Amino acid sequence: MDLVRIGVLGLGTVGGGTVNVLNRNAEEITRRIGCTLKVTHASVKDLSRNRICDTAGIELTTDSFAIVNHKDVDVVVELIGGDTLAKELVITAINNGKHVVTANKALIALHGTEIFALAQEKGVMVLFEAAVAGGIPIIKAIREGLSANKIEWLAGIINGTGNFILTEMRDKGRDFADVLTEAQALGYAEADPTFDVEGIDAGHKLTILAAIAFGIPLQFEQLYHEGITQISQQDVQYAEELGYRIKHLGIARKTDQGIELRVHPALIPEKRLLANVDGVLNAVVVQGDAVGPTLYYGPGAGAEPTASAVVADIIDVVRNINADPQHLIPYLSFQTPALSADPILPINQIVVPYYLRITVADNLGVLADLTNILSSQGINIEALIQKEPYTEGTEVDVIIITSKALEEKLDHSIAQIENLDTVIGTVKRIRVETLG
Amino acid sequence: MDLVRIGVLGLGTVGGGTVNVLNRNAEEITRRIGCTLKVTHASVKDLSRNRICDTAGIELTTDSFAIVNHKDVDVVVELIGGDTLAKELVITAINNGKHVVTANKALIALHGTEIFALAQEKGVMVLFEAAVAGGIPIIKAIREGLSANKIEWLAGIINGTGNFILTEMRDKGRDFADVLTEAQALGYAEADPTFDVEGIDAGHKLTILAAIAFGIPLQFEQLYHEGITQISQQDVQYAEELGYRIKHLGIARKTDQGIELRVHPALIPEKRLLANVDGVLNAVVVQGDAVGPTLYYGPGAGAEPTASAVVADIIDVVRNINADPQHLIPYLSFQTPALSADPILPINQIVVPYYLRITVADNLGVLADLTNILSSQGINIEALIQKEPYTEGTEVDVIIITSKALEEKLDHSIAQIENLDTVIGTVKRIRVETLG
Repeated sequence: MDLVRIGVLGLGTVGGGTVNVLNRNAEEITRRIGCTLKVTHASVKDLSRNRICDTAGIELTTDSFAIVNHKDVDVVVELIGGDTLAKELVITAINNGKHVVTANKALIALHGTEIFALAQEKGVMVLFEAAVAGGIPIIKAIREGLSANKIEWLAGIINGTGNFILTEMRDKGRDFADVLTEAQALGYAEADPTFDVEGIDAGHKLTILAAIAFGIPLQFEQLYHEGITQISQQDVQYAEELGYRIKHLGIARKTDQGIELRVHPALIPEKRLLANVDGVLNAVVVQGDAVGPTLYYGPGAGAEPTASAVVADIIDVVRNINADPQHLIPYLSFQTPALSADPILPINQIVVPYYLRITVADNLGVLADLTNILSSQGINIEALIQKEPYTEGTEVDVIIITSKALEEKLDHSIAQIENLDTVIGTVKRIRVETLG
Repeated sequence: MDLVRIGVLGLGTVGGGTVNVLNRNAEEITRRIGCTLKVTHASVKDLSRNRICDTAGIELTTDSFAIVNHKDVDVVVELIGGDTLAKELVITAINNGKHVVTANKALIALHGTEIFALAQEKGVMVLFEAAVAGGIPIIKAIREGLSANKIEWLAGIINGTGNFILTEMRDKGRDFADVLTEAQALGYAEADPTFDVEGIDAGHKLTILAAIAFGIPLQFEQLYHEGITQISQQDVQYAEELGYRIKHLGIARKTDQGIELRVHPALIPEKRLLANVDGVLNAVVVQGDAVGPTLYYGPGAGAEPTASAVVADIIDVVRNINADPQHLIPYLSFQTPALSADPILPINQIVVPYYLRITVADNLGVLADLTNILSSQGINIEALIQKEPYTEGTEVDVIIITSKALEEKLDHSIAQIENLDTVIGTVKRIRVETLG
């Protein structure tokens, strides 16, 4: 199949993001899969509304059933949410022999068993990476990457709204209600925030994670969930005093007695990476018996992070449709003839800030010299520490963090600095990576 | 194929771990893939040596070529390392039509292009998840999970030995040489530590990551690498004063001029998760244009973490061999008929520590009452804060972290505490998750 025709149900935040990613990265995606993905049809509530994506070349309709019944659609992408109409549409698509990609956690958590059985019978794929933790490929990590393991437990921050609220409460000393109002204004929280703050959204996701981790059926009705509405500023502060952070966790654990399946606020020791996942970000720790603990972190919501998972699922579908089973995934991720000839840069062509440690005779004039040498190359000093001399009147360390600079220019500056009479020995240089 | 026969080249740490994981998790793996994996052959240097794994039922030989040429071996797992004999064995296996799984980063980084071309021609798979970052499924995450993205950059701590040394230098104020000697004694560092401390091992891994991220050929010869031997205790401390940590990073970045490909020590702002990855653990941050930053963290080496990735690759091979292309991976990770009936536990059957906030009249006797009530249920007090009264003589908060307790018993204790005359209102209870 050289052209894969995609029908998108719903062109809101995630639908629009999906169209944008498919358009912007069309060439990159074709280099990976050797064929073209095209959104040919999309359903919307209101044909006249402004959209975040270009809709040129897409047949728009207000009738989602027209898409799932359309003979020229190969893959249906369900992004309308909810578990009633969405279910009916997905069931119809499967009955029509179409592959389905969905970001709908409620649909999968509540109706996955029925949907998967039908898909198996009809020989189509139903993929749902975007349903849990947005752009983090956590379903793939557990279902494929950790397939050698007995999973012992997993714990995750899997609702960005709740984590944003708890982070603001801690960082700024604000109260729950106050932050919730802001989150609603920013669009992080719905007008009715129940699903987020009471742990229902996280519960849908945890239900899915527990099923794929332990090999148990989807059992949302057995989930224990407790929200964050009762967390007060005092609790946040007392937890801090005791060396903990409060997070809203989804936890699934296999015990000899059965499976724990629970969403509730929890104190986590502040040294854990999970305790340091802040704002709208998500993270999941998975404990496997062979691998030990692994952690997956990233944006759990938003237009393009969610679209990232939706499009990866479409690509998985296409790799399977087009399977020469021996070569589903190219060795180096891209088709061999599509590898690019980008040059690898010499190290002196990188541009980063630098840490410099310069040992100087205890001489005040040297700072002016250092500043002049660096600024003649367009390099500024962002931070400076001058230590006391080791012993009276002898050498002293000057430590500098520079602005970003071309390494070639920095090399030149260092050579000049080392030539100064007041500088002793060589300049120690370590690159700074802000990872921003 | 109901039985997949595996030939393992090398039964050392990773080979022994692979056999142990396949044995221990045989039932779990069959529930996932619907067939049986069996190590039928293994090559060793010395037949008489003691091993970390049971070798019953495995035909042992000192002749690795006998295995890659054996008609009854379906998948060859190469775990002998190095890039000369290993290359010859892998090439022979591929020529014999056998699928190959390897943990050998040098082999892939240096000879991957040739190996993949031959494998493509012969129609076999070559998988190498274990070659980078041990048990973390980072190859799968980039090659499949993030396939919708243009990858902009990635940065990782991908050598556990080097990270162990830097962590000890920071935590304990020790010098490089001193920690290296200990790492060698602990088995974290080789007798010749050059590959680890000079960034060559990390360079092999970065070469592979850059290729799959950007769709460029493997180009180890273009890599810039700088070791950690010149990092002194002073640098570690100055970095700390400036708000940074020093880590040995592998960085690959796509720029308009070309690809940066470099391994060197770097200062990272201490707030970044990557700055807080300590000891022998690995982590990789990947920045995609759609998803933004995602991070993958876990054990980068060791017998069973590496075996976790090796066995996951074997499972991927088998899913492809056995592909009904529509159903390579079960929806819920396990075959539907193999889903288990483990009960979901009621919330009062979990066992965790608890944070309790109890508001009491300012009365010293209450602490004895609280202690007695909890200890009558076998619950100890691990930490306690008693705050000053809000105003003279009025109510005061007592905060307790308990020992681990069955929630049912804690519920009972809370009911008793709330009945005390000196206790005001209800007891606030939040669960503690140590994630240990």
